[in-house]
Amino acid sequence: LGKKKLWVIKIGGNIIDDPEALENFLQDFSAVPGKKILIHGGGKLATDLSRKLNLEPKLVDGRRITDAETLKIVTMVYAGYINKNIVAKLQAHGCNATGICGADGNAMLAHKRQHPTIDFGFVGDVDTVNLTSQVDQNQTLIIAPITHDGNGNLLNTNADTIASAVATSLSSTYEVGLVFCFEKRGLLADMDNEESVISHIKKQDIELLIQKQVITGGMIPKVHNMAHALEQGVEKVILCHAKDLLSVLNGNTIFGTTFTGNEN
Amino acid sequence: LGKKKLWVIKIGGNIIDDPEALENFLQDFSAVPGKKILIHGGGKLATDLSRKLNLEPKLVDGRRITDAETLKIVTMVYAGYINKNIVAKLQAHGCNATGICGADGNAMLAHKRQHPTIDFGFVGDVDTVNLTSQVDQNQTLIIAPITHDGNGNLLNTNADTIASAVATSLSSTYEVGLVFCFEKRGLLADMDNEESVISHIKKQDIELLIQKQVITGGMIPKVHNMAHALEQGVEKVILCHAKDLLSVLNGNTIFGTTFTGNEN
Repeated sequence: LGKKKLWVIKIGGNIIDDPEALENFLQDFSAVPGKKILIHGGGKLATDLSRKLNLEPKLVDGRRITDAETLKIVTMVYAGYINKNIVAKLQAHGCNATGICGADGNAMLAHKRQHPTIDFGFVGDVDTVNLTSQVDQNQTLIIAPITHDGNGNLLNTNADTIASAVATSLSSTYEVGLVFCFEKRGLLADMDNEESVISHIKKQDIELLIQKQVITGGMIPKVHNMAHALEQGVEKVILCHAKDLLSVLNGNTIFGTTFTGNEN
Repeated sequence: LGKKKLWVIKIGGNIIDDPEALENFLQDFSAVPGKKILIHGGGKLATDLSRKLNLEPKLVDGRRITDAETLKIVTMVYAGYINKNIVAKLQAHGCNATGICGADGNAMLAHKRQHPTIDFGFVGDVDTVNLTSQVDQNQTLIIAPITHDGNGNLLNTNADTIASAVATSLSSTYEVGLVFCFEKRGLLADMDNEESVISHIKKQDIELLIQKQVITGGMIPKVHNMAHALEQGVEKVILCHAKDLLSVLNGNTIFGTTFTGNEN
């Protein structure tokens, strides 16, 4: 198609919580050739800091609420501590990184989540992503999962959703590959067998795999995020272990699970 | 000279600690025409958070030390909470702001402070500022006083020093005006009389004013920072109350103290 390749890579909290795994991942990420974007989650640091400050997690109907104090903590931890430490470490590896949240350059506009009975507080659902001019620069963007509403308020936003929205928004300009790195080797046919990685899933088969309970629990919203990205123009979506990133990007299909649209 | 005008504006901690004063300042800052950069200090938030976490300030020979835990806190508060809230508020005022620290885009490289007897911990003295390409973009940079050493470590750096270093580094490309906004109306001839603002000081008179104890205490390093900027090519340096920013930038010399090189 003549579009430039762009990798949008999301790194999960379990890797961020493990200093050695994070260091290895960042070294590999630095070595990814061409245009790339990193989206990071939060890990346990925000919860640890809340506990030290004696803030009880606020739950309504079993769901976590982002009150003003919690928003302050996730802004400090995600957009401050985690984001800037990742950037400093990437600079040490020769990767010219710039860390942003959704307020910076008006990159991600969101609105407070609307729900008929629950007030989730300062939780944002993404409306628009404006990253094209920033991606065109000769810098690698590192995105913290904080957005803004355009009226001066920051909002706490799910990092998987941001990864999917960023990949989707850039797919008209770039040939986008979206990679979710986490602590497992891919989607497992048998949860108890780490060797049972399903190497390729077509979008049309996702609902069947949910029915058959191969895809369960927290993987269901993650996989729906992936399906959405495929529908919106992202070329392929890969789920893999953080340590397999470079093998996966080199096209080695032994590693990770690749999701493609129905025609592929 | 045909150089474009650039305002480098520093806002002090006392304004950041006062929500109404900060809001008024950010509204005025948004209205400053042309290229501008904002450098912010930290205020009391980092100290408050340290206290809540029961961290005792570490002092050696009466001087504050940035240990690993303190670095974590200032990174969270300065580069996270304060920086991103300022950016979100400026976006609401129609100013397309992007917040960075010195690690982002390798903007400010520093080294750990060397001292014959005191280990200041993670305190950085700035070596190089590389902001030209970021300033050329159509965004307004908001700079948190955190730098990095190029080896993966973040460093806590004085915001006045950063303002002076940023202004100096950009003076070969831009006609730079450097403005320090704080909670007083300028340099006062009589400390007890807010009306006694000295409107104009030439660089050659600074040492005389220190000898005569018109410039005292914490103002001495601040004024030395200003003198350094004037020596290094900055056109003029202004010290003023945050609420007088727009009047001062419009050239109204009733407000603030303007420092110029000897020839002016």
